[in-house]
Amino acid sequence: MTRQHTRLEDFRVVGERLRNWGRWGPEDERGTINFITPERLVAAGRLICRGAIFDLGIPFDKSGPQDGAFRSNPLHMMSETGAGQDFPGGFKFADDYVLMPLQCASQWDALAHVHYDGLLYNGFPADGITTKGAEHCSIDKQAKGIAGRGVLLDIAALKGVDWLEAGTVIEPEDLDEACERQGGVEVGTGDILLVRTGWRRKFLSEGDPAAFMAGEPGLGQACCAWLHEREVAAVGSDNWAIEVLPGESPDAFLPVHLILIRDMGMSLGEILDFEELAEDCHRDGVWDFFFAAPPLKITHAIGSPINPVVIK
Amino acid sequence: MTRQHTRLEDFRVVGERLRNWGRWGPEDERGTINFITPERLVAAGRLICRGAIFDLGIPFDKSGPQDGAFRSNPLHMMSETGAGQDFPGGFKFADDYVLMPLQCASQWDALAHVHYDGLLYNGFPADGITTKGAEHCSIDKQAKGIAGRGVLLDIAALKGVDWLEAGTVIEPEDLDEACERQGGVEVGTGDILLVRTGWRRKFLSEGDPAAFMAGEPGLGQACCAWLHEREVAAVGSDNWAIEVLPGESPDAFLPVHLILIRDMGMSLGEILDFEELAEDCHRDGVWDFFFAAPPLKITHAIGSPINPVVIK
Amino acid sequence: MTRQHTRLEDFRVVGERLRNWGRWGPEDERGTINFITPERLVAAGRLICRGAIFDLGIPFDKSGPQDGAFRSNPLHMMSETGAGQDFPGGFKFADDYVLMPLQCASQWDALAHVHYDGLLYNGFPADGITTKGAEHCSIDKQAKGIAGRGVLLDIAALKGVDWLEAGTVIEPEDLDEACERQGGVEVGTGDILLVRTGWRRKFLSEGDPAAFMAGEPGLGQACCAWLHEREVAAVGSDNWAIEVLPGESPDAFLPVHLILIRDMGMSLGEILDFEELAEDCHRDGVWDFFFAAPPLKITHAIGSPINPVVIK
Amino acid sequence: MTRQHTRLEDFRVVGERLRNWGRWGPEDERGTINFITPERLVAAGRLICRGAIFDLGIPFDKSGPQDGAFRSNPLHMMSETGAGQDFPGGFKFADDYVLMPLQCASQWDALAHVHYDGLLYNGFPADGITTKGAEHCSIDKQAKGIAGRGVLLDIAALKGVDWLEAGTVIEPEDLDEACERQGGVEVGTGDILLVRTGWRRKFLSEGDPAAFMAGEPGLGQACCAWLHEREVAAVGSDNWAIEVLPGESPDAFLPVHLILIRDMGMSLGEILDFEELAEDCHRDGVWDFFFAAPPLKITHAIGSPINPVVIK
Repeated sequence: MTRQHTRLEDFRVVGERLRNWGRWGPEDERGTINFITPERLVAAGRLICRGAIFDLGIPFDKSGPQDGAFRSNPLHMMSETGAGQDFPGGFKFADDYVLMPLQCASQWDALAHVHYDGLLYNGFPADGITTKGAEHCSIDKQAKGIAGRGVLLDIAALKGVDWLEAGTVIEPEDLDEACERQGGVEVGTGDILLVRTGWRRKFLSEGDPAAFMAGEPGLGQACCAWLHEREVAAVGSDNWAIEVLPGESPDAFLPVHLILIRDMGMSLGEILDFEELAEDCHRDGVWDFFFAAPPLKITHAIGSPINPVVIK
Repeated sequence: MTRQHTRLEDFRVVGERLRNWGRWGPEDERGTINFITPERLVAAGRLICRGAIFDLGIPFDKSGPQDGAFRSNPLHMMSETGAGQDFPGGFKFADDYVLMPLQCASQWDALAHVHYDGLLYNGFPADGITTKGAEHCSIDKQAKGIAGRGVLLDIAALKGVDWLEAGTVIEPEDLDEACERQGGVEVGTGDILLVRTGWRRKFLSEGDPAAFMAGEPGLGQACCAWLHEREVAAVGSDNWAIEVLPGESPDAFLPVHLILIRDMGMSLGEILDFEELAEDCHRDGVWDFFFAAPPLKITHAIGSPINPVVIK
Repeated sequence: MTRQHTRLEDFRVVGERLRNWGRWGPEDERGTINFITPERLVAAGRLICRGAIFDLGIPFDKSGPQDGAFRSNPLHMMSETGAGQDFPGGFKFADDYVLMPLQCASQWDALAHVHYDGLLYNGFPADGITTKGAEHCSIDKQAKGIAGRGVLLDIAALKGVDWLEAGTVIEPEDLDEACERQGGVEVGTGDILLVRTGWRRKFLSEGDPAAFMAGEPGLGQACCAWLHEREVAAVGSDNWAIEVLPGESPDAFLPVHLILIRDMGMSLGEILDFEELAEDCHRDGVWDFFFAAPPLKITHAIGSPINPVVIK
Repeated sequence: MTRQHTRLEDFRVVGERLRNWGRWGPEDERGTINFITPERLVAAGRLICRGAIFDLGIPFDKSGPQDGAFRSNPLHMMSETGAGQDFPGGFKFADDYVLMPLQCASQWDALAHVHYDGLLYNGFPADGITTKGAEHCSIDKQAKGIAGRGVLLDIAALKGVDWLEAGTVIEPEDLDEACERQGGVEVGTGDILLVRTGWRRKFLSEGDPAAFMAGEPGLGQACCAWLHEREVAAVGSDNWAIEVLPGESPDAFLPVHLILIRDMGMSLGEILDFEELAEDCHRDGVWDFFFAAPPLKITHAIGSPINPVVIK
């Protein structure tokens, strides 16, 4: 878990090697979600054994982790409370609005979220992203997902800390060790991998949005190949960008985003809360489960707020 | 299915008879979702047999069914497209916002959505609903739901029409007949009942928001007892208010809302799209399935946008 | 006032002839507002004689003229009412939000509002308009305006109607006749010309947003030269686009916008209410007055909501 | 200018003594703006001598003084840039939205902004403020204002500092001394008084929203009587609450707001920028001028964004 600036490959080289463009046809806009075949979905359903349900979404409100410098927290406004209404029979209703950056709280990144060299996943042109949204690879293209087998790897527990510090690089070896330590749980084709860094716990302990956003522990660039080999369908984390920040190299900003989303076509789930789930997994020793986090079908959108459910 | 104004009971009388207040304790804010026990959730998981997945959410965009007279369609706005950005390595990202009435498209009603005589479900005071949202029975209280066994009843097909006309009352007998016609499928404790009226098909055919909102076919008041007896956990429909509009009596506005939500504590799922699912069910003759529609945890909110997934 | 499709010049030819690019230097982003010199501003102040004040803004609320097909009316939401607050001494406060298209009600068009052939007013590149707003010619560049001598020409009264019909072309001769009929009032350098078509009265009479937006009476293309010769600083109207709709030629959409804004550099004030002012002018025979309508300094914005004041 | 906690009168006593309720009739919702008679407006117009115009609004954008803890800065979003449009003749247009707390930048407080003991200005019931806005004393009731004679008093200059520190109380004696120092300028009936504390300069120097909002120098409670005696129509300042913060007594929050707005019926203009104007006034020795700041007519609203113009 030490920083290895000297050995870091150029992300473009890695991206080219791991690229899934054309793998599911030239028109594909779903990427690695395609790994979740009907068979795997059926198998995921079989993981519902105890009927215990967990929700991984954080509360959407002003107490969220955004400090306003980049994104703001959701703004919830009431348009009706029932006061002043005069309907037959005494009917009263309440109604409300929300305004939010689509990626301000628990959320999926659409495959249109990041790009480089003018191209999105599967070679779609980046200039299809305009004031009207994304012509290709928007989140509504994942409408039928994202459900399947989830696996939680608790890296903070592996390292024996409440949370990893910002800038801590999670290496493939860490993922392997966590699998081994967690009873030999395996991560395979079509799985949704959830990586616990403890960053949510830090926020819950400190309540400091600026500290939450200033950096984070997360996946290092080398993990991209690990995810590629195992044909993982999606990755989620309790931090806000999946990957380590500050990054491993000053020459690339968010290279894991670029490789996973743009080259591999992998949706990322961010700002999730694994606290209750992790506690349960430590207790019963079962680290895989049914997972479902359907995105809202916001047309042409770059992301979607979510509240993933896990059922064991 | 004829209108029976003369025989209609006062909704307060029905509400009092079917009231579930206190049934799950004096502090309960989840209502009939409590019918979904771990056992039933495990049984629901067993319905995932083919690995076929369906999404019941409608697209969230300007083409939605709101005509602006009451609620408006979602407003999606881009804050970043990648243009003008200068990050190390050529990283580019897109980002966006949404503003929407929480009940403008596919959505759950929170139990705080309607009230009468100053009280919400379980006797919570209605004046707890203020500019700050709902103190009790807000949608985030359903965070761990709403997942379980779903059953689709296709009433439009039962009646042999593309869609029922606005004002058409669905009676308990219609629900029974649909069960029988659909291979004897049963609706029982903890089920999420989905009622297809064809109203979504009408909107897709005509594209007329004003016509969609002007009225609708839907459940008549007598269905409340039917749902109560079967201990249904939640009801969803392809119309926008579950119940028939104009209503059965000029003396009560949305009485089914009042009885189901306020007295029985039942969450309603509205503006859903059953078209693809119904077609599949007609084909394979299987009308029950695993259903999951986790609400966003918008604190103190009156509803939540959703994209329910169904897996068979 | 008949339609003259056959004789209509190409708007590009007219635009080139009337173009003010470079007139106030290569960096100018204020256009014809530059006609309002200190001397003219002093003279405008001398028109304050009776101390009678008029407001030309329409109410900003849901009853506005937008039908939602293009723009929506302002959305006003309360965040605080005083309820539930606990400050020392019993202090209570209310607070609120507004969301609106900047051009949904009474408003100035920024010079960045329209363009053709890739260029804005004064030759600024149109691709400086991005998701971040307008790099050049945004409304905040008019921050010190727009105040000066206003002149109202009541064309509806000239024609003896409550309102002109949609599609009615106002010709230069109409403007001249109105001047003559209104006691020989003159329109000259640095004036803000207000053209009353009666379209606001129509909306107030009928309350029909769709009818208000479907078309309108307004300036024909020939008026551009008239305004250019007189060195008018800005034009306002009680319709929503200053110019006639449907337009005089099927080959050009909103050509008056293009010539006035993009070529001449003239700000347009739209959706104004002249009813009370016109009545007063008819009464006292004074058709010129002090006018002030400072735009909000919304950085990089394409327009600004306003409530112009007139003082006689 | 030292803190005088011991001598401070209860604000309710002061409020009762200075109360203007009924002064302009039982239905009045405009308060001290009524002091601006036609005669005074005509006199104000005579102050336009040089034709020099100043704008007192701050830029409305993300760089504003809100730190998000209470209010947020304006959010400006583009809906159209011209890209992808296909109109006859090559017409292209840009369009945009703004979302903002109405009091996040330069703004008028409506008389409905604050209240105590259940009553607003002129005795209107505070419970008329609901999710729908204010039934009485909303900002649109000031639609025909606020224009008249403005007077700037530069208290920071009086004290020989760039800005007064947070918590510095401005006393009536300071106002008198400033008048004397500024060539004997007088503040009288119907004037709009502008008080410069230097707080805007501090923000421009430091760029720190949290520091701007954490407290401020401003009017002490004793100034209310001074304003009352002189029959001032409105007060504006370059801070965000007119009055000193932390306040003079721990027993009352924003008592100057309560006395001025609720008892006297005075509109407050906040977060203004006097830097350019003050420099000019120091240069030419003229501290009074024509002032106009018409509020947007946002129906039932608690405030309005403004860009006041001053003309000398």
